[in-house]
Amino acid sequence: MELENLCRSAKAAKYEMQRYTTAQKNDALLKIAYLLVANGEEIIAANAKDLENAQVKGMSVALQDRLRLTAARIEGMSEGLKQVAALPDPIGEVLETFDRPNGLKLAKVRVALGVIGIIYESRPNVTADAFALTFKSGNVVILKGGSDAIHSNMAITKVIRSGLKECGITEDAIALIESTDRETTKAFMQMRDYVDVLIPRGSAGLIRSVVENSKIPVIETGAGNCHIYIDETADAEMAKNIIVNAKTQRLGVCNACESLVIHEKAVDTVFPVVAKALKEKEVELRADEAALAACDLCVAASEEDFGTEYLDLLISVKTVKNVDEAIAHINKYSTHHSEAIITQDDANATKFLNEVDSACVYVNASTRFTDGFEFGFGAEIGISTQMLHARGPMGLKELTTYKYQIRGNGQVRG
Amino acid sequence: MELENLCRSAKAAKYEMQRYTTAQKNDALLKIAYLLVANGEEIIAANAKDLENAQVKGMSVALQDRLRLTAARIEGMSEGLKQVAALPDPIGEVLETFDRPNGLKLAKVRVALGVIGIIYESRPNVTADAFALTFKSGNVVILKGGSDAIHSNMAITKVIRSGLKECGITEDAIALIESTDRETTKAFMQMRDYVDVLIPRGSAGLIRSVVENSKIPVIETGAGNCHIYIDETADAEMAKNIIVNAKTQRLGVCNACESLVIHEKAVDTVFPVVAKALKEKEVELRADEAALAACDLCVAASEEDFGTEYLDLLISVKTVKNVDEAIAHINKYSTHHSEAIITQDDANATKFLNEVDSACVYVNASTRFTDGFEFGFGAEIGISTQMLHARGPMGLKELTTYKYQIRGNGQVRG
Repeated sequence: MELENLCRSAKAAKYEMQRYTTAQKNDALLKIAYLLVANGEEIIAANAKDLENAQVKGMSVALQDRLRLTAARIEGMSEGLKQVAALPDPIGEVLETFDRPNGLKLAKVRVALGVIGIIYESRPNVTADAFALTFKSGNVVILKGGSDAIHSNMAITKVIRSGLKECGITEDAIALIESTDRETTKAFMQMRDYVDVLIPRGSAGLIRSVVENSKIPVIETGAGNCHIYIDETADAEMAKNIIVNAKTQRLGVCNACESLVIHEKAVDTVFPVVAKALKEKEVELRADEAALAACDLCVAASEEDFGTEYLDLLISVKTVKNVDEAIAHINKYSTHHSEAIITQDDANATKFLNEVDSACVYVNASTRFTDGFEFGFGAEIGISTQMLHARGPMGLKELTTYKYQIRGNGQVRG
Repeated sequence: MELENLCRSAKAAKYEMQRYTTAQKNDALLKIAYLLVANGEEIIAANAKDLENAQVKGMSVALQDRLRLTAARIEGMSEGLKQVAALPDPIGEVLETFDRPNGLKLAKVRVALGVIGIIYESRPNVTADAFALTFKSGNVVILKGGSDAIHSNMAITKVIRSGLKECGITEDAIALIESTDRETTKAFMQMRDYVDVLIPRGSAGLIRSVVENSKIPVIETGAGNCHIYIDETADAEMAKNIIVNAKTQRLGVCNACESLVIHEKAVDTVFPVVAKALKEKEVELRADEAALAACDLCVAASEEDFGTEYLDLLISVKTVKNVDEAIAHINKYSTHHSEAIITQDDANATKFLNEVDSACVYVNASTRFTDGFEFGFGAEIGISTQMLHARGPMGLKELTTYKYQIRGNGQVRG
């Protein structure tokens, strides 16, 4: 079976990957960065086929724009590869050493995860991006992109594989699953014998489908029903600036704020300032009774609103008696991505940081900072919202695991 | 539905757990250690019911022995709880801090995983053990034990819950699923909304079933088809001692050696010494042609032998041309648990450490050391054989994850 052969080759390549030096990996990344631009016309021609099909299908103009590759966008992909080449290599780092009384010397050493599967949707630049990050971190990647971008993805993968070959590196460090039907995707998710980790990138629906159907361990990413809590002592001006930024700076991103939680004593003071600023940005406020009574800029919220990641000009508003009730509300409705408190009260800030169960918890800052680049990781494959392995922004280190290397001189167990 | 209510209570308890201090947790562990012994008669009476049922069912004497609780074994459980109380608390450890140019101060802080489900088989001491480790690491545990030990497990859980209550800690820090049918187990594995991680402990069959049916992220443990490679320069006496230890010191454990890999130049020199010593311990050697020709103590191996974790007085033997072939053979057949090389050649030792894809890789030592106590972790919930989250022995730290706590003074994203 074609898919199984592809996965088998990827598994074989993962053992090859362990032999390449940092210099070899960086050389290959730079070579491919050059080749992407040099083969730009070919890639754009392939992309034109995808755009043609998109038009026939009646794809929205916004989605067509996400799909479109231009010389400038290919330049951007190429630049991305160069940036990853410049990052430190995580592989081989000695995380810990310890000597045992029996003379055994243990070293905990950072190693690659192995074969990483990535299932993603229409943007073809993910192809180059995901390759760069998985390759630099010593992994093999199997990509399953959306059917909308298949010609673009094939063209980009072809360039990457030719670059690897020119550098004497196994081409199987990257594989693209060319069949785009759903059955293949389902079959791919069963390939536990060959694939070590699966990372879905895309809509909530895609991620749910992977979580529910995969036999391969999954890193869940992306869903962000992020809250900002306005505490009793919040500074109104700061609250306004942070919330407007977190809600409106970019609507369709997972770290945007989707819900306000407000201390009942701030509902008549801070909240009207925030509400006015949000209305000026055309945000609809869906509020509970207390907030509705305090500010006539709102409409009534339903229970469903509190659990919704809008990704739109909408925000829910919930009033609470104190920080404990705020934390309980957030832990009930959040997707454990990013939440913030705005307060001048140190005790409440600390309580919020400790008790809110999310990957990233902020005091007096915008949730929009949950991002690999903003955290200084230099790159990002996604934002993990699960508890296992990694939480929050995932850079190169988060694409690795460890092994124990133990040296002895004949020790046996007594 | 009863199971869902139990899971919901566990999820509510996980937020309580974050509020207890180290002293509170240790006091509770010591109180429970005392209560287990104080209520020993009640526990032994419950265990007697299980043993009665076991006899009716015709359970083997060996399995009945695993199931049996005595005053001494209850003392042992109690001692285990005291040991865990004495270990450092992993929660709250600051793993890393970094300041960003915009003034944001980030701290990566160790936190509990949340609600941990453990599915296990007949030994009732796992009930107390698993509670101690998950509780000390700030987690809530939901236990699904085997039907054979249900009365024992209920009695132990009752004592633990009463101890928690006496110490002012939520009893829901531990829950036991009392229904023992398979449908309940299957339903439990779907409880992704409430349970953060599932750890199966038991036979290969149990673990496979959990991996295949769980919607909850799983930490796979326990399967160990462990190899020892006798390199060209191996010292015969050292090889003999290590291999006899790794194969025969305890047969039924996951870190026992199940397969020998031998350099063709050692097959006439070192191997006969090893084979003789193994035969003296009544181990059957199942060898490929080259080893069979070199030593008349062997029988012929089939292909299947190389993939088998015997847990018995059996070992497979494979001859190879060099260390590269040894590594390829091991990476093909191993379960990525523990492997060792016996060599005097530093270059081969380093190559083996780097290229063998297992959680624990040894030079000149027995694979039997893969164990939380032997590694100095002071405790162990199991040995992870997967790539995600943790590899090898899992102690208290491996039952945790992290979150980012970020302090700002009004930062917004530009």
